[in-house]
Amino acid sequence: MNDTATYTKKGEPFERDMSYIPDRVLAGERSADPLDEQFPSGSKDSPRDVQVWKAEPGRYRLVAARACPWAHRSIIVRRLLGLEDVISWGAPGPTHDARSWTFDLDPDGRDPVLGIERLQEAYFARQPDYPRGITVPAIVEVESGKVVTNDFPQITHDLFFEWRDHHRPDAPDLWPADLREEMEQVMKRVFTEVNNGVYRCGFAGSQEAYEDAYDRLWTAMDWLEERLADRRFLMGEAITEADVRLFTTLVRFDAVYHGHFKCNRNKLTEMPNLWGYARDLYQTPGFADEVDFDQIKQHYYVVHTDINPTQIVPVGPDAAVWDTPHGRG
Amino acid sequence: MNDTATYTKKGEPFERDMSYIPDRVLAGERSADPLDEQFPSGSKDSPRDVQVWKAEPGRYRLVAARACPWAHRSIIVRRLLGLEDVISWGAPGPTHDARSWTFDLDPDGRDPVLGIERLQEAYFARQPDYPRGITVPAIVEVESGKVVTNDFPQITHDLFFEWRDHHRPDAPDLWPADLREEMEQVMKRVFTEVNNGVYRCGFAGSQEAYEDAYDRLWTAMDWLEERLADRRFLMGEAITEADVRLFTTLVRFDAVYHGHFKCNRNKLTEMPNLWGYARDLYQTPGFADEVDFDQIKQHYYVVHTDINPTQIVPVGPDAAVWDTPHGRG
Repeated sequence: MNDTATYTKKGEPFERDMSYIPDRVLAGERSADPLDEQFPSGSKDSPRDVQVWKAEPGRYRLVAARACPWAHRSIIVRRLLGLEDVISWGAPGPTHDARSWTFDLDPDGRDPVLGIERLQEAYFARQPDYPRGITVPAIVEVESGKVVTNDFPQITHDLFFEWRDHHRPDAPDLWPADLREEMEQVMKRVFTEVNNGVYRCGFAGSQEAYEDAYDRLWTAMDWLEERLADRRFLMGEAITEADVRLFTTLVRFDAVYHGHFKCNRNKLTEMPNLWGYARDLYQTPGFADEVDFDQIKQHYYVVHTDINPTQIVPVGPDAAVWDTPHGRG
Repeated sequence: MNDTATYTKKGEPFERDMSYIPDRVLAGERSADPLDEQFPSGSKDSPRDVQVWKAEPGRYRLVAARACPWAHRSIIVRRLLGLEDVISWGAPGPTHDARSWTFDLDPDGRDPVLGIERLQEAYFARQPDYPRGITVPAIVEVESGKVVTNDFPQITHDLFFEWRDHHRPDAPDLWPADLREEMEQVMKRVFTEVNNGVYRCGFAGSQEAYEDAYDRLWTAMDWLEERLADRRFLMGEAITEADVRLFTTLVRFDAVYHGHFKCNRNKLTEMPNLWGYARDLYQTPGFADEVDFDQIKQHYYVVHTDINPTQIVPVGPDAAVWDTPHGRG
């Protein structure tokens, strides 16, 4: 996402703008998820005039910054499912200005496939006066250079259900049908209380809003700590989409949210089950591959000048602890 | 102290102004410390025109905010030595404006003995155009309302050597003569690398200055961790002034310096010897009595608007961990 667009006015709690370009990339004319109507994955505020684009190898590029937790989900899912040769990936750098994420890590500062310097260009190709934040992740059609969708919960959902013919043979079942109802509840609580909960702490516009946010976050963290006492992963013995969604917040917790967002009741390393669980995922191929703690810290500490005006980026904590034995499973 | 006066210019490392009013309160005409010439305790940059005031019970008031680590030293030493009935204590609140610490915790916002609202008044009584920061601790002569000295290393030194006739019978020997030479070296390193080292991190004016400060701090923290592996206290089996000086930084470490000053390689709780040692001191009568974590956090997070413009004060960490068994001694 692009956090500069989501700052809180003084005195107000943080509310995330959940309006996205809601188009979908589908295998057929309708969703391949039999439970799609019952559990719609996209942002609920999206208008209903959704265009359908066809899932075709080589046609799309996933633009997703390593630094951004919402984009990080799609990077991990693409990798877990083995879609690297089917959907290419462009990675903006960790910092962005008020207008756009930029391809400042690429040679000449241009994405080598899309040929653009600023992700904004792909949004404007889609809609010349695109009025909302220039966010990642975004699926861009390579030929037209247009953003197809930036609806992050829908993107990872559809990578699973709509690209199944292209998954690697031993790809995990990230959306097990028999666990779906409970999983949707877990993911909803993880989103509102943890993924977004840390932002609610960090972007609170008043002491009262911050303290309410802090209590909500830690109530949820305690729930997760207890849930993981007798489950290796959130839904049981196998990794699901719910784990991907929680992981991207946990991996940033001690490096950023603990200090920068004042989520400081405990470090993640002080929550035994959550810390073992987070390392278990981290040490699973596909999770750690694109974790870049330097980019993660750069992003938050440089972009959020309202809460870190010096833009000085902390050196700690030592990331080597992520490689220690997790003792689970 | 008054930190607003010591902010760093952009791009520069932090340098503490060590100019204080250097007068001394002595038992006689000369220092009662036989090693005073060899190891001068006061700030070295002080001018040499030092006036001597006589140590007399009831004549002076120690003005020292619970929030401030430099003032906290004098609160602890006064208590350890049993000087409560001999030198009274006035406590400004945790936050101050750009001009002065204030007695906002007292009835009507006035110190009940000195009758002043702002500590600045006592500085101006001493010198009408007093040009430097209005700092705590300060020794104020009650009758004249004038600041006698604000030279913090000298203040605790002299509480020990110059008020011995008034110490409680079992007062600890905070300055053991046989350890003096090594203790001075230890205190010097603790001051430059730890007490002041955390400020050097937090007030660094550039990424480079911060990273240099971070390395210096953690080099010293590792040295202390190792030193405390086979010593209960810094100088051996008994508490000395060196421990008081280190304690006031350690007790603030996880609550403030870890996040606010970006001293985040580890929490204190992750350094086994230092953490056991810090709790050992905390649980010694005289140390925890006046520790107020709320005031400590209020002070740093509210006063330093250059690094925390939202002035939101973190809820964590949980201070109850300070009461857990320390396992030492």
